[in-house]
Amino acid sequence: MPGERTRLDAGERRAQLVALAVGSLADTPLDALTIPALARRAGVSRGLLFHYFGSHDGLHRIVLETARDAMLHATEPAPELPPRARLRDTLSRTVGFVRDHGGTFASLVRGPASTDPDAREIIDQARRAQADRVVAVFVEQGVADTDDLHRAARAWIAFVEELLVGVARGEEPAGDPLVDYLVRSAEAVVAALSVVE
Amino acid sequence: MPGERTRLDAGERRAQLVALAVGSLADTPLDALTIPALARRAGVSRGLLFHYFGSHDGLHRIVLETARDAMLHATEPAPELPPRARLRDTLSRTVGFVRDHGGTFASLVRGPASTDPDAREIIDQARRAQADRVVAVFVEQGVADTDDLHRAARAWIAFVEELLVGVARGEEPAGDPLVDYLVRSAEAVVAALSVVE
Repeated sequence: MPGERTRLDAGERRAQLVALAVGSLADTPLDALTIPALARRAGVSRGLLFHYFGSHDGLHRIVLETARDAMLHATEPAPELPPRARLRDTLSRTVGFVRDHGGTFASLVRGPASTDPDAREIIDQARRAQADRVVAVFVEQGVADTDDLHRAARAWIAFVEELLVGVARGEEPAGDPLVDYLVRSAEAVVAALSVVE
Repeated sequence: MPGERTRLDAGERRAQLVALAVGSLADTPLDALTIPALARRAGVSRGLLFHYFGSHDGLHRIVLETARDAMLHATEPAPELPPRARLRDTLSRTVGFVRDHGGTFASLVRGPASTDPDAREIIDQARRAQADRVVAVFVEQGVADTDDLHRAARAWIAFVEELLVGVARGEEPAGDPLVDYLVRSAEAVVAALSVVE
């Protein structure tokens, strides 16, 4: 941006800086995203970034929120599909998002230090949203809407994250067999519930 | 320890301080375990703790290693049992450990900040050890020893951790139905593999 003469209002400029910061996750983990590092990358002063983001944690929070919303948006369930096809479609787009944005995904699910509870809460919101999508798919298919179902869905999200972190690192295959396995694993852990109830 | 006249050699004294630090996880999360906090609790000088542990991260590493080894030891598989009974027995003792040492378990699986790769590696070793135990149970029962089985076992460990974090927080029931569900969920995600291979 140095030397640019374009006049942006403060909101646009801030949004541009957030987009640059989120984009940097492609090649740099969240831990390395500091105000000085972003200032160098954007060619702006640290003071300007402190003005926009308040603090290092403030920068991380808006970056995590933006990345989280991008992932949730990219994997939004298609309401016109019947439940099982909707689950498969959502998972297929999730695997695609992780393949295309591995650094962003890894920063989302493994990045935020446990010392910032606000950062963890941002990610936990995404996990709850995804677990709710899974619960909806099974409840529509007649599974009882119990606490156990919600717990199993939440735990299954952790199962999926663990497999997808391998995809994000380029260590695991990310094609249709993985998507199909994810669908079957969801059905399997939900079916395993019914014996206890 | 203040006022005590017992003479301990350095190794014993260090071990005593580590035990005190691990014990503190029962009521205080790992994040709050600092050299000054432990010095107050133990009634010794900060200098002595720096002498024994080198640094804050050094203290956290030995505490995590000790807690991890206690959990792995308490949940060591019983080799005399056939595979399925061995898995159930291991899971039953794991649930018992989490019920009795919820703070320690939560610090192990959610405590270490992502900024200390050494701390993460200590926990990842435990996850690999537990995944290997699960793989052994299924391979002994005739399941093919593939990369997919190892990945599924590793992801299932994340599934179990998520359920057990709820137990550690006292938010979820921790009786035989949970143990039985964990056994069935392991069998379910492994059985779901066989279609793709």
